[in-house]
Amino acid sequence: MNNGIKSILEAVQSGSMSVADALLKIKEEPFEDIGYAKVDLHRKLRQGAAEVIYGAGKTPEQIIGILDVMRKNGQDTVLITRMGEEAADIVKSVHELDYHKDAGIGIVGKMPLPDGIGNVLVATGGTSDIPVAEEAAITAQALGSNVVRLYDVGVAGLHRTLAHLDEIMSASVIIAIAGMEGALASVIGGLADCPVIAVPTSVGYGASFHGVSALLSMLNSCASGVSVVNIDNGFGAGYLANMINHIRS
Amino acid sequence: MNNGIKSILEAVQSGSMSVADALLKIKEEPFEDIGYAKVDLHRKLRQGAAEVIYGAGKTPEQIIGILDVMRKNGQDTVLITRMGEEAADIVKSVHELDYHKDAGIGIVGKMPLPDGIGNVLVATGGTSDIPVAEEAAITAQALGSNVVRLYDVGVAGLHRTLAHLDEIMSASVIIAIAGMEGALASVIGGLADCPVIAVPTSVGYGASFHGVSALLSMLNSCASGVSVVNIDNGFGAGYLANMINHIRS
Amino acid sequence: MNNGIKSILEAVQSGSMSVADALLKIKEEPFEDIGYAKVDLHRKLRQGAAEVIYGAGKTPEQIIGILDVMRKNGQDTVLITRMGEEAADIVKSVHELDYHKDAGIGIVGKMPLPDGIGNVLVATGGTSDIPVAEEAAITAQALGSNVVRLYDVGVAGLHRTLAHLDEIMSASVIIAIAGMEGALASVIGGLADCPVIAVPTSVGYGASFHGVSALLSMLNSCASGVSVVNIDNGFGAGYLANMINHIRS
Amino acid sequence: MNNGIKSILEAVQSGSMSVADALLKIKEEPFEDIGYAKVDLHRKLRQGAAEVIYGAGKTPEQIIGILDVMRKNGQDTVLITRMGEEAADIVKSVHELDYHKDAGIGIVGKMPLPDGIGNVLVATGGTSDIPVAEEAAITAQALGSNVVRLYDVGVAGLHRTLAHLDEIMSASVIIAIAGMEGALASVIGGLADCPVIAVPTSVGYGASFHGVSALLSMLNSCASGVSVVNIDNGFGAGYLANMINHIRS
Amino acid sequence: MNNGIKSILEAVQSGSMSVADALLKIKEEPFEDIGYAKVDLHRKLRQGAAEVIYGAGKTPEQIIGILDVMRKNGQDTVLITRMGEEAADIVKSVHELDYHKDAGIGIVGKMPLPDGIGNVLVATGGTSDIPVAEEAAITAQALGSNVVRLYDVGVAGLHRTLAHLDEIMSASVIIAIAGMEGALASVIGGLADCPVIAVPTSVGYGASFHGVSALLSMLNSCASGVSVVNIDNGFGAGYLANMINHIRS
Amino acid sequence: MNNGIKSILEAVQSGSMSVADALLKIKEEPFEDIGYAKVDLHRKLRQGAAEVIYGAGKTPEQIIGILDVMRKNGQDTVLITRMGEEAADIVKSVHELDYHKDAGIGIVGKMPLPDGIGNVLVATGGTSDIPVAEEAAITAQALGSNVVRLYDVGVAGLHRTLAHLDEIMSASVIIAIAGMEGALASVIGGLADCPVIAVPTSVGYGASFHGVSALLSMLNSCASGVSVVNIDNGFGAGYLANMINHIRS
Amino acid sequence: MNNGIKSILEAVQSGSMSVADALLKIKEEPFEDIGYAKVDLHRKLRQGAAEVIYGAGKTPEQIIGILDVMRKNGQDTVLITRMGEEAADIVKSVHELDYHKDAGIGIVGKMPLPDGIGNVLVATGGTSDIPVAEEAAITAQALGSNVVRLYDVGVAGLHRTLAHLDEIMSASVIIAIAGMEGALASVIGGLADCPVIAVPTSVGYGASFHGVSALLSMLNSCASGVSVVNIDNGFGAGYLANMINHIRS
Amino acid sequence: MNNGIKSILEAVQSGSMSVADALLKIKEEPFEDIGYAKVDLHRKLRQGAAEVIYGAGKTPEQIIGILDVMRKNGQDTVLITRMGEEAADIVKSVHELDYHKDAGIGIVGKMPLPDGIGNVLVATGGTSDIPVAEEAAITAQALGSNVVRLYDVGVAGLHRTLAHLDEIMSASVIIAIAGMEGALASVIGGLADCPVIAVPTSVGYGASFHGVSALLSMLNSCASGVSVVNIDNGFGAGYLANMINHIRS
Repeated sequence: MNNGIKSILEAVQSGSMSVADALLKIKEEPFEDIGYAKVDLHRKLRQGAAEVIYGAGKTPEQIIGILDVMRKNGQDTVLITRMGEEAADIVKSVHELDYHKDAGIGIVGKMPLPDGIGNVLVATGGTSDIPVAEEAAITAQALGSNVVRLYDVGVAGLHRTLAHLDEIMSASVIIAIAGMEGALASVIGGLADCPVIAVPTSVGYGASFHGVSALLSMLNSCASGVSVVNIDNGFGAGYLANMINHIRS
Repeated sequence: MNNGIKSILEAVQSGSMSVADALLKIKEEPFEDIGYAKVDLHRKLRQGAAEVIYGAGKTPEQIIGILDVMRKNGQDTVLITRMGEEAADIVKSVHELDYHKDAGIGIVGKMPLPDGIGNVLVATGGTSDIPVAEEAAITAQALGSNVVRLYDVGVAGLHRTLAHLDEIMSASVIIAIAGMEGALASVIGGLADCPVIAVPTSVGYGASFHGVSALLSMLNSCASGVSVVNIDNGFGAGYLANMINHIRS
Repeated sequence: MNNGIKSILEAVQSGSMSVADALLKIKEEPFEDIGYAKVDLHRKLRQGAAEVIYGAGKTPEQIIGILDVMRKNGQDTVLITRMGEEAADIVKSVHELDYHKDAGIGIVGKMPLPDGIGNVLVATGGTSDIPVAEEAAITAQALGSNVVRLYDVGVAGLHRTLAHLDEIMSASVIIAIAGMEGALASVIGGLADCPVIAVPTSVGYGASFHGVSALLSMLNSCASGVSVVNIDNGFGAGYLANMINHIRS
Repeated sequence: MNNGIKSILEAVQSGSMSVADALLKIKEEPFEDIGYAKVDLHRKLRQGAAEVIYGAGKTPEQIIGILDVMRKNGQDTVLITRMGEEAADIVKSVHELDYHKDAGIGIVGKMPLPDGIGNVLVATGGTSDIPVAEEAAITAQALGSNVVRLYDVGVAGLHRTLAHLDEIMSASVIIAIAGMEGALASVIGGLADCPVIAVPTSVGYGASFHGVSALLSMLNSCASGVSVVNIDNGFGAGYLANMINHIRS
Repeated sequence: MNNGIKSILEAVQSGSMSVADALLKIKEEPFEDIGYAKVDLHRKLRQGAAEVIYGAGKTPEQIIGILDVMRKNGQDTVLITRMGEEAADIVKSVHELDYHKDAGIGIVGKMPLPDGIGNVLVATGGTSDIPVAEEAAITAQALGSNVVRLYDVGVAGLHRTLAHLDEIMSASVIIAIAGMEGALASVIGGLADCPVIAVPTSVGYGASFHGVSALLSMLNSCASGVSVVNIDNGFGAGYLANMINHIRS
Repeated sequence: MNNGIKSILEAVQSGSMSVADALLKIKEEPFEDIGYAKVDLHRKLRQGAAEVIYGAGKTPEQIIGILDVMRKNGQDTVLITRMGEEAADIVKSVHELDYHKDAGIGIVGKMPLPDGIGNVLVATGGTSDIPVAEEAAITAQALGSNVVRLYDVGVAGLHRTLAHLDEIMSASVIIAIAGMEGALASVIGGLADCPVIAVPTSVGYGASFHGVSALLSMLNSCASGVSVVNIDNGFGAGYLANMINHIRS
Repeated sequence: MNNGIKSILEAVQSGSMSVADALLKIKEEPFEDIGYAKVDLHRKLRQGAAEVIYGAGKTPEQIIGILDVMRKNGQDTVLITRMGEEAADIVKSVHELDYHKDAGIGIVGKMPLPDGIGNVLVATGGTSDIPVAEEAAITAQALGSNVVRLYDVGVAGLHRTLAHLDEIMSASVIIAIAGMEGALASVIGGLADCPVIAVPTSVGYGASFHGVSALLSMLNSCASGVSVVNIDNGFGAGYLANMINHIRS
Repeated sequence: MNNGIKSILEAVQSGSMSVADALLKIKEEPFEDIGYAKVDLHRKLRQGAAEVIYGAGKTPEQIIGILDVMRKNGQDTVLITRMGEEAADIVKSVHELDYHKDAGIGIVGKMPLPDGIGNVLVATGGTSDIPVAEEAAITAQALGSNVVRLYDVGVAGLHRTLAHLDEIMSASVIIAIAGMEGALASVIGGLADCPVIAVPTSVGYGASFHGVSALLSMLNSCASGVSVVNIDNGFGAGYLANMINHIRS
């Protein structure tokens, strides 16, 4: 945005833009206001290749409206997260949508070719964590990362984890997803030599407190290189993993 | 106590005891009231070989008073837990006391020979968990178990855990002690084939919440055969481990 | 697993196995990957007589798939926990299933004869705790323990507890199950002379906080020999009780 | 106060009081403002025989100042709670004070003769709960109740509780004081046939969370007739017990 | 129960009962075991005039079964709490039941004439607290107390509370029921000169946390003579109020 | 009310009112008791131009009943909050009702002309916060304030906030509404020079804990001039904003 | 700041400022960086008459350093909050400081004459809340408000509150400060017709949880017009009260 | 470790190592057991350039002992975190130690030249967050990253943040450190286009709950690319930032 201010200032200085226009431009350009939402249009330049619509709490109509604005403004790929199957069906009637039911993600536009530094490994402790894992995996893929999946490798069956040491040790970034006691992040964090993004899931019962147990466990990991995102936040983990996988000076 | 009631009833029936005396006997026999405490005297028969004084919140004088009653009633070995060094010095002036500073435990009387089914393994995640571990280990020893110590084998350095597979797989009962994320219980629980008593410790900072993170993690362990005692409750774990190690039909 | 590594090493040394094959074997042998799950096949040798499928969050089809692999690999008895009646009906159409509705447990294969050290006593504070109790009881039975049931003996009617002193004092392991204030574990722990596994239940309302009150109460039990499993975790208690009941050197 | 309004209204009607005076009287009469406190003077008529000063967070000088106003206005007995030994010494230099160190209570004026309906029984689970119990006991005594003490009868040694069934069953009100798992309230509540005021104490460690475990346990008591006051609130329990012990139509 | 033991002992001594029979009697007499419940039969003598069935989590059939046992054993009045309308309809087909929909309470047998010391006042902060209030009121009535209702007198409209000073100041026991900030207990506790039983309700939203806000507020009441029962526990408050209203030496 | 007492006193003094009548008047005047509610009638004089019915937990019939009393007593405008669409339809059949579905608010009577000191700005972090915002906005309008809406200006797109600096800096009061991390309040509080009322919303998932995260964030705002109302309490914020906007000496 | 950007743009357009200088100006002007702090210099224009230094966690030397910068830049009055007596003594040796020990506030420069719309009333529930009240009161005074103090008017002695109805009903803004159950805010909110800023204090013990009980109580106040600041945040309340007291279009 | 197993297997196959030696080697090689700790020796190869000693809860003697082992095994640079000044003085007497008091970090050996992909930006919300920031900054430097510091740029003074847009937008990784409401992470996350590691600090009071408020705020950040480490965990953030800054395929 700084660059934006600078270029506007230069336009004012050169006389090609009036002060009033400049002030207006600063205010109005970066998004389009469609009532129920202010749609970012320049985020693509600032934050990544695909634009994202957080679908939770939005009607299919609102999603379509935001999609319209984005596509109209030249956005190639749009990711819609937390979208149910019914909403997906309605959106499909207007936009070409590739819907991933497990992950609750829809994609408009084509998936990019992976161009990251290395692989993003997505690991889960159990079978029930797979929906969160798919949200993470597809997000990272849609943003340009190659993804390796490693599901149901919880620490109570340590041999299953150890059997995949190759994948663990050759990843550039790892997303460790687990509910219950969330120990997977620490075990993988101790084995791996790359950043581990821990995702606590709400899988469990009783004193798992809908993911709080796993969350605390992961925040207190004794392994270095582990950081944590919100409970069930597969999207956040996938976004961050891809960002790390494209790090630049 | 049932047996007690039965034998009293039989004495009443045989005429060797009056009803009033019987009722009195039921009320007065099993403990001696010394004002600040009601000292159990028959617990030895009921609950184990050594009697225990929970030292926290008791003055050295109170501890000595309770010791007096116990010893007078023929209790061979008495364990005093959560006793500071100063209190130990005062008690030492009256009773022969073997004080273990790390564990905060004093022992009056001789240690029994181990007569349990197998070994009790006491494992810790880190160095800071050692005081809790020693409380557990000495308790189990004082009650008649052979104890194997395995300290600083936290899951972030998994090879250290794996290097001791022999000890882990040959124990009869394991006490897994860890703070922070408490993942040790799950990892050991997944490797071992015996009961694992998990002890969360208050070691850690921030979101470890004085042991709550480890406690929740252990309660949610995905490994079978794991149960949990209170935060920092080394004594409880040692007592239970020894009890399991002496299980009988 | 250590033994596994050792025998593989010996096979390599004797020339009967190549290094590449050995590495492959270590990685692939102990489980079969069927996509949505990595099914442990050697657990029987490591952790007990019956194999367990945690049914919560698995579709009947997934349960059947895992059953297929287990049975194919020679597993005699399989316990499926947390399985609803509808799922049970579907599984029944493929495998011979003995379904216990109260407990939410299905059993494929025959129940073993009890061969434990003694009896496992399962006690509940109230009527509402019975489903959790049945989960514990049937689990222990399916794994080889004789089980005695003692339901609705909550501490507010202490005479009901005392009336069963015989059963309490002659058990080898006790599972004490209660919601609300969870005092049952302490009262039984004070009477009994064997390990007590406390199971808090989510029975109650208001400040019981779905089992938290009972959980805290049990963790803070002033009775020795008490340990705790997760809220409503009847399976875990039954598994552990049976393990203690088969303790070996 | 209603009566007060009524009598003021009557005075106004009879002409013996002006409207302005009446309004003034309503505002100014019931307390004396000494800057740091507004001392209630008519509470004696409204709420009980002795007046109480909550000593916590008050300087000895402030306590003396409030005492001066109370005594000057004819208050015979004044209870000062939560007062340390040093403060008591300073107050003693001005007022005749009977200080109970264990309870942290000082009494100015003479203790009343007990004139309640029956006895108030004060029971504790352990030795460490005694200070809270003494706060309760002395408060009830100072307000006019006969008190029976029953200390260290925790539920882990149930025979100790049962040995005192006579006292429990003959009390008019019972104060049950316990930390840790707080099961005492339920056990006594199940045995007794009178109101039980449960006082959770902050005695314990780890997951007792400074009395929260006992508090929740007591709030969820399955015994009828149990109500709860704040953690460590011996005064509140003693005050209420005495009030119940003097109930009137 | 003490008396029970004593009379059994006397029977043994007199030869009218054998030891074995005595032991049997202690165990079997005080309740009847009907599988899903152990029905107390002597509670009437011990704890009050009407017997109570806690209906939550019991099927209509179970309720009918327990009712059968109670009525067969001569229990005149039975209160069934937390019973929905459908269950009530089924019970009605077997037993004559007076069902109070608001309170969720059914009564079998006739209501006793009030014979308490004075009146029980039941006050609520708002309209939404009425169901809890009715549970309390009808319970107290069914157990023998005269009840005065005072609904919707929350502290934000203080004049409404003050308008009823007469009722507040002439009650023998007050039940103060409120959700949200629960200030009603303190305000009434400050005005009244009798025990106040505070009942927090789960009425509210957001940071009321389903009654936790009101619960904490009431536990911390600065008014003396206030004690607290569980969130929404109208029954407990009514039971205790009636007990206080019948206090005896 | 003070004035009320004074004028009643004067009437008594002048002989135009008897003491009994005066006491009665104090008790009965300010509200009308219609069984399920005590309807305030003089609140209009005391607290604002429109009267409010909190609709949550009231049946349409109860709402209509309260409306009847209010309208009969001359209340021009009545706001009904937290009313669902179905209830609104029923109320509409009796009273002329302007229903705002988004806000869940119905208005009987005409909206007042804005007469506040300045504008009330209502800002939200996201689209999902709009219902709470509308509740706030319509409340403030119904009570006499001009409202400016500024939706979806969350801090992750700071340029959207900055683009509206004019509105932010020219408001008299700002209502900042946000879920998730609730940072909007701090950012706006740092930019604005007027009171900011922060409303945490329950929008979010996982560790947002139904609004607790936003609530804590807002309570800890490092910006001065920020205060907080309950989670999702749009009405409270609108009411307070309007009150501030009409502040008087 | 918007105005700032606009004027800079105009300077650029008019040629009186280069683009580079403009960009530099936007970045560097509003604060002075003294290493450990970035001191705002233009806040006076934006946010109020006096500048504030939050003293907690700052050394006396750092406070002096920031004071130096502020005074050098023409700031007349500076408030230093949360400053201990020792720090105040050191600051006094360099700057003329008026230190209020109770409030922990120091003032450099002269107090402004009150120029607000009306009075700010500061009320406390008890004596222990006075330090927080003084922090609020002196802050409001230093920023230009007339303050009326009303201490120790807690709801358990309601007549004390009612005796001051005049002050309560004639205030423009009220700050209600209370610990324990925090009911003061609701009672005053119900009586007053102006904004009430509620300040929970950490006064209390046990289940007051260091102010959480009062905080929740205040957030759930059933009185309209009440908002809440952080626990013990007297400064924040005083600042906001003064801001409301100077509201402008 | 997989490679380790493979090379050992090859050695066994080639006959250069016996099976018993191989098993021994797997167990004993990777660490040295010095009683109170098991010192990792090969971590350097696995996890980074410098080895780290977590100083909290270790005596200076233990730190020296571990240092001895590490240095003896060829470790060039060792970082000791959470070490007080006194401990540092003792360690200095044996090893050449560069002690950073603010950060509580000591470094033995020389600092490496930065060789990361880009810059690590360390930003704090306030002055009190600086110790945590220094822990992060020095850790990242000691592990090979160039670090840019940006302190006291909290969101309440947004212009201070915006003034540093250049640094924010040109970083490769950002560490955002804040207490209180923790909004800094979201604001920076919204502006930056690189991974943001959020560190909540325990700075604050009241409802900040020792960092919980900031922690929740950061976990719920609406900005993408943000992950969180434990409260006050500057080391963890610095370690991870450096790891990301050295990402490789």
